[in-house]
Amino acid sequence: MANITKKVSWSSRADEAGAPGEGTPLLNGSEPRLSRQLSGGGNIFQIGRLSTVDLEEEMTSEEDSLRGRPKEIPHNEKLLSLKYESLDYDNIENQLFLEEERRMSHMGFRCLEISRWVVCGLIGFLTGLIACFIDIAVEELAGFKYQVVKENIEKFTEVGGLSISLILWAVLNSAIVMIGSVIVAFFEPIAAGSGIPQIKCYLNGVKIPRVVRLKTLMVKVGGVICSVVGGLAVGKEGPMIHSGAVVAAGVSQGRSTSLKRDFKIFEYFRRDTEKRDFVSAGAAAGVSAAFGAPVGGVLFSLEEGASFWNQMLTWRIFFASMISTFTLNFFLSIYHKNPGDLSNPGLINFGRFETDTVAYNLYEIPLFIAMGAIGGLLGALFNQLNYWLTIFRIRYVHRPCLQVMEAMLVAAVTATVSFTMIYFSNDCQPLGPEHTEEYPLQLFCADGEYNSMATAFFNTPERSVRSLFHNQPGTYNPLTLGLFTLTYFFLACWTYGLAVSAGVFIPSLLIGAAWGRLFGILLAAITSTGSIWAVPGKYALIGAAAQLGGIVRMTLSLTVIMVEATGNVTYGLPIMLVLMTAKIVGDYFVEGLYDIHIKLQSVPFLHWEAPATSHWLTAREVMSSPVTCLNRVEKVGTIVDILSNTSTNHNGFPVVMEVTASEAPPKLCGLILRSQLIVLLKHKVFVELARTRLTQRKLQLKDFRDAYPRFPPIQSIHVSQDERECMMDLTEFMNATPYTVPQETSLPRVFKLFRALGLRHLVVVDDSNQVVGLVTRKDLARYHLGKHGLEELQLAQT
Amino acid sequence: MANITKKVSWSSRADEAGAPGEGTPLLNGSEPRLSRQLSGGGNIFQIGRLSTVDLEEEMTSEEDSLRGRPKEIPHNEKLLSLKYESLDYDNIENQLFLEEERRMSHMGFRCLEISRWVVCGLIGFLTGLIACFIDIAVEELAGFKYQVVKENIEKFTEVGGLSISLILWAVLNSAIVMIGSVIVAFFEPIAAGSGIPQIKCYLNGVKIPRVVRLKTLMVKVGGVICSVVGGLAVGKEGPMIHSGAVVAAGVSQGRSTSLKRDFKIFEYFRRDTEKRDFVSAGAAAGVSAAFGAPVGGVLFSLEEGASFWNQMLTWRIFFASMISTFTLNFFLSIYHKNPGDLSNPGLINFGRFETDTVAYNLYEIPLFIAMGAIGGLLGALFNQLNYWLTIFRIRYVHRPCLQVMEAMLVAAVTATVSFTMIYFSNDCQPLGPEHTEEYPLQLFCADGEYNSMATAFFNTPERSVRSLFHNQPGTYNPLTLGLFTLTYFFLACWTYGLAVSAGVFIPSLLIGAAWGRLFGILLAAITSTGSIWAVPGKYALIGAAAQLGGIVRMTLSLTVIMVEATGNVTYGLPIMLVLMTAKIVGDYFVEGLYDIHIKLQSVPFLHWEAPATSHWLTAREVMSSPVTCLNRVEKVGTIVDILSNTSTNHNGFPVVMEVTASEAPPKLCGLILRSQLIVLLKHKVFVELARTRLTQRKLQLKDFRDAYPRFPPIQSIHVSQDERECMMDLTEFMNATPYTVPQETSLPRVFKLFRALGLRHLVVVDDSNQVVGLVTRKDLARYHLGKHGLEELQLAQT
Repeated sequence: MANITKKVSWSSRADEAGAPGEGTPLLNGSEPRLSRQLSGGGNIFQIGRLSTVDLEEEMTSEEDSLRGRPKEIPHNEKLLSLKYESLDYDNIENQLFLEEERRMSHMGFRCLEISRWVVCGLIGFLTGLIACFIDIAVEELAGFKYQVVKENIEKFTEVGGLSISLILWAVLNSAIVMIGSVIVAFFEPIAAGSGIPQIKCYLNGVKIPRVVRLKTLMVKVGGVICSVVGGLAVGKEGPMIHSGAVVAAGVSQGRSTSLKRDFKIFEYFRRDTEKRDFVSAGAAAGVSAAFGAPVGGVLFSLEEGASFWNQMLTWRIFFASMISTFTLNFFLSIYHKNPGDLSNPGLINFGRFETDTVAYNLYEIPLFIAMGAIGGLLGALFNQLNYWLTIFRIRYVHRPCLQVMEAMLVAAVTATVSFTMIYFSNDCQPLGPEHTEEYPLQLFCADGEYNSMATAFFNTPERSVRSLFHNQPGTYNPLTLGLFTLTYFFLACWTYGLAVSAGVFIPSLLIGAAWGRLFGILLAAITSTGSIWAVPGKYALIGAAAQLGGIVRMTLSLTVIMVEATGNVTYGLPIMLVLMTAKIVGDYFVEGLYDIHIKLQSVPFLHWEAPATSHWLTAREVMSSPVTCLNRVEKVGTIVDILSNTSTNHNGFPVVMEVTASEAPPKLCGLILRSQLIVLLKHKVFVELARTRLTQRKLQLKDFRDAYPRFPPIQSIHVSQDERECMMDLTEFMNATPYTVPQETSLPRVFKLFRALGLRHLVVVDDSNQVVGLVTRKDLARYHLGKHGLEELQLAQT
Repeated sequence: MANITKKVSWSSRADEAGAPGEGTPLLNGSEPRLSRQLSGGGNIFQIGRLSTVDLEEEMTSEEDSLRGRPKEIPHNEKLLSLKYESLDYDNIENQLFLEEERRMSHMGFRCLEISRWVVCGLIGFLTGLIACFIDIAVEELAGFKYQVVKENIEKFTEVGGLSISLILWAVLNSAIVMIGSVIVAFFEPIAAGSGIPQIKCYLNGVKIPRVVRLKTLMVKVGGVICSVVGGLAVGKEGPMIHSGAVVAAGVSQGRSTSLKRDFKIFEYFRRDTEKRDFVSAGAAAGVSAAFGAPVGGVLFSLEEGASFWNQMLTWRIFFASMISTFTLNFFLSIYHKNPGDLSNPGLINFGRFETDTVAYNLYEIPLFIAMGAIGGLLGALFNQLNYWLTIFRIRYVHRPCLQVMEAMLVAAVTATVSFTMIYFSNDCQPLGPEHTEEYPLQLFCADGEYNSMATAFFNTPERSVRSLFHNQPGTYNPLTLGLFTLTYFFLACWTYGLAVSAGVFIPSLLIGAAWGRLFGILLAAITSTGSIWAVPGKYALIGAAAQLGGIVRMTLSLTVIMVEATGNVTYGLPIMLVLMTAKIVGDYFVEGLYDIHIKLQSVPFLHWEAPATSHWLTAREVMSSPVTCLNRVEKVGTIVDILSNTSTNHNGFPVVMEVTASEAPPKLCGLILRSQLIVLLKHKVFVELARTRLTQRKLQLKDFRDAYPRFPPIQSIHVSQDERECMMDLTEFMNATPYTVPQETSLPRVFKLFRALGLRHLVVVDDSNQVVGLVTRKDLARYHLGKHGLEELQLAQT
């Protein structure tokens, strides 16, 4: 994997973009394009210097070749990849759109609003169903696996030869993980990991290719079941968030491009603005289903994704979350043969903390804060190790078969380590009267006792967390917990980033719960008398929060999620403190895990504010120029040539008024997108044809919606030589009132406008309203605050 | 008060604004102003048609005369008052500001960020302290009062002559309420009510005069103690939100204008942008202290106030909330002689609902939804009655002494009704072993029993709510609850809007809890066998949520508040459903209580989105014109005249480039505010003087900050006749890059930009960047969706 060096140069030669001999594919005409003639002929205005390019996702021919595995993966976090496009969160208010809106009655808007609620209800319902399916599948399959292994171990404990049990366990795990890894690595690599970084990016406004497709969902669901059943140190909660987002993107469009089915409903929602709103709802529904935390879900969506806060949208998100928890709850209650009991929501259930038994006091707060700091440190260590590991993986483990082998290796090692730990542990505990342990392993313990290490290792991680939270004091001995923390920490760190669908929430919680409980036990040993210290479960909870906070660095939403998942509001305050401490301590060393992975993908992620010291910069310095502008009535050939020019793959073109006299410079009058031009070319909306074919149906918004979101590449559109001479009138289709800023606007001001409105293109004009540049996401994401002040990232054509 | 009829006319005469003889006060020159000369002389550009005026709050001379009681109160919700100004949430990026920002190092920004956190911590701490003070004061005083009355009643129960007890009770209540009402009515009328509508407006971006002053806070705190102790049907929770906001506005400025103390700290925060952010934190801290709901507080601030969601800001808000709950908790734990126990947060404590005893089941959901609908209906009735009552009050009860008398009357009636109800009630209940009742009244009951009606009436409302939630089944008989609901409903409705500081949360909860419990009891009676129906406390909770939701129509934040206040996450789902149902049902009839009061105040409140069917309108139709523009270098006399013109009291002036040749029209080059011009005039920043006094200190940002927020009126600035001939160079001081939109921009698009960025002035330009109009808050708030489609409100100069 060669490091990406093809940097876009910042030359000042005005003619560079149009220089001949660049090998532009000319599918639509045999005559070689004379770019000098074009740029000199007054048809295209090349204003200023050079340009950031802005690649289209839907370049399907290119895309397909990259499908299996992109050949060049950037692994330098000082780069910004050009392959990521922005979502268009701003409505394209062209004449067609305005006409449609004006035709709509008040009743029409109300129906639309109702259908938004219906869609959100559906999203919640389906997300809940998927969560339910994953949960039941994992429960059944893992139950079966553990039963088989347990019987085998019991058999061989008596007769000797436990190594056979070990091999059985390791092979079983590897085989299951192999299935999960193969579907991910070979069929849909984007389904790897928890999906949270991808959804974060999507909600931030970056279009990540293939992230919300049906195929991704199916691979994700299959993959997560395999990796959890396969005994990896993973959770099934992160992938739920991704699944919810995919469900939302699918349901809201009323069709599936993969299945080639169009239900002809929700056509109004076929644009980025609406779709992104629904994806927020889907992500929230996913969180809600995963943790039984509807409010936490809403806050997650807002914390990660919102730019402009809209009350109605938030309510809809809330509704989706609610329905999702509700659905999951309902079906699980049937599965657990207790139909109708809705009191135990969520995929993970930490069990209730009753205040009476586990109260906390003021003098415990410093202890909690200390635990937060430990969590921050351990989290930073985790992230740093995983960062190095990811760099290593990008360099050396990029082929699918290697990835599958690594996953299998990790599965086998996990099983082996677990087995060894259990084997050498002599921590025997009496079986409680309620038999709360699902698969108690007796091993070498006396009758009526079980191996305590096995409750941590020989179990799904969710159950282990619950045991650590709620088992009676004295259930674990400190050595067991210490060893478990140590091994699980490295296993989890190794596991995250494998080519399997898997979340990092549960492993983090488990590590934290283990050392937290250890902390509690040690504390109780030191202060032998006090009864308040005697509840190690409380410290397990705090430790879990600290560790998770140290790794993912969320605060607000995570607090609420933890509170909702434990069903106890009283612990809100200490959890908040712990999460904040963990974040502050962790941020001192290294970024959060998701942010690290986002940076390693070179995604142009926009933060909440412009870097603090960026008041020096103005729009003039930041913008891309020259900008390729189009005339209001433009020659078809010119448009085709511009769109075909792969070296400057712009997606938005300012439209300017025709030049009438040479001294009057052209003024901005609109903005048109590549996708719109493609649709216009496809439908041959040419002025000349309109004259001859008067009866021809007028192009409608529906045509644009039908093409959304996979617009065909320009290469697939045939334009004859005659047609090249025709003219296209863009007046009706361009956004006549694009947002503009003057050249002197400071970067923070540009940033604020861009971020708050979720723009994709922001036109920079001079004081006579002439186009001088264009600001896109990459121009803004380029600047970031490094250790030595403001740094500028390079753009890479990956 | 006479209905306001002075409507701003929509004339098309371009010279109207400058017509002579309008009696403009000319304090600064003896020569009568020749406005024709001005408007014709090319100095001021009057472009287009007419204008919305935009009054300055800080017109102190006028303001003082209006102080005690504005003489004309608009009571028509079809008007928009011109007396409310916008906050400037957009930074004024002039050269001074940019220079300061550029001088600041990375370290400087970090310090600033830390001081923001410190301020938020202080806000939380002080808000918690105030809540603690109110709580303890109410507890002590109410305890004393009830003790006195109780002893008196016990004395006279035996000897007869209970009417003396009644009189004692009524007089005691009236006297206490009188104190509270006098300070509100005579000293600070803005402190009346819960303050939530005012804070909603402030967070929405409307500057409500005197709402965040120290005096308001003191009156509010004193007033709320009096009204709760005085036995009115009120709560102390709403006022906490207002108190938190005042604390925030005060602390963040590092000085008190009322006390004339300037601590010379936090000077950077002396502008609307920062202040509004801190006020959000204060409001959240208030909610957090009131209900022990830090997350609910954050969501309240966001639901009511946020426009642009900023992660760092949200975290700071969260921190303030957290500290606030924590402080309150800590001091209350000391007061309750249980120091260090932090498990019972909040002013109101609903008591924990334990899941084991009060589980709910799927088939109860329809019942809950039905209760939500009942809550919505009753809430709508409450709001409608209160609306009529408010109209009546505006017309006939507007003099302070009348208001005090009304408050006293309500207090006396409340006592009388309570007494009568208790007197005629024969619902005796045995005293429990734990004596959970604070002031059990035996009255005519047998020994060892107490009057059940008295637990509802003879108690602070908070305690009554808790009793209704948690008392054992059978504690209340249905007749008691029915009568109580009925009387308390009307009492609470009558009480809201009195000239006392008082919240509506607790009365709403109490009404709802009463009928909810009644509902539960009836249900248990019908389905005699099932044990799950036998918990009326559960229905009391749902009823309380339904009633509160029906009145105030909050959903997301209220759900979280209820969940946090009851300490039980399990009830999140039914509470959400109930609140949504209540909102949908209630909205069908009438708006929420706070919105009604905001509308009656004619506040230009901006909703989340433009009205649905407003795509017809463009910026051209919406904007105010002609706009008074200034030259970049402008004559002092002209500026003074413009600022002194009371008929068109603009606050923002587009600055245009000088006209050099007659054919080139002037282009927009900046925007300057009235407040900035006033400071410039006050410091005599004239071009001529700068030449003569070269050593003079350059005007700095500090001078503007010192003047913030109470800029002197133009009348207080003396400009001599010679000085009138001087010139002022505005280049350095104007915002050189104001946001602009083209004339054709649709209203929803203008609205989105305006709302998302919290603008105060939005310049409308034509395609050559010439000013054609100005959009302010009132221009946007004017349009709303009525029963018959889009309606336009009139502007009133009140």
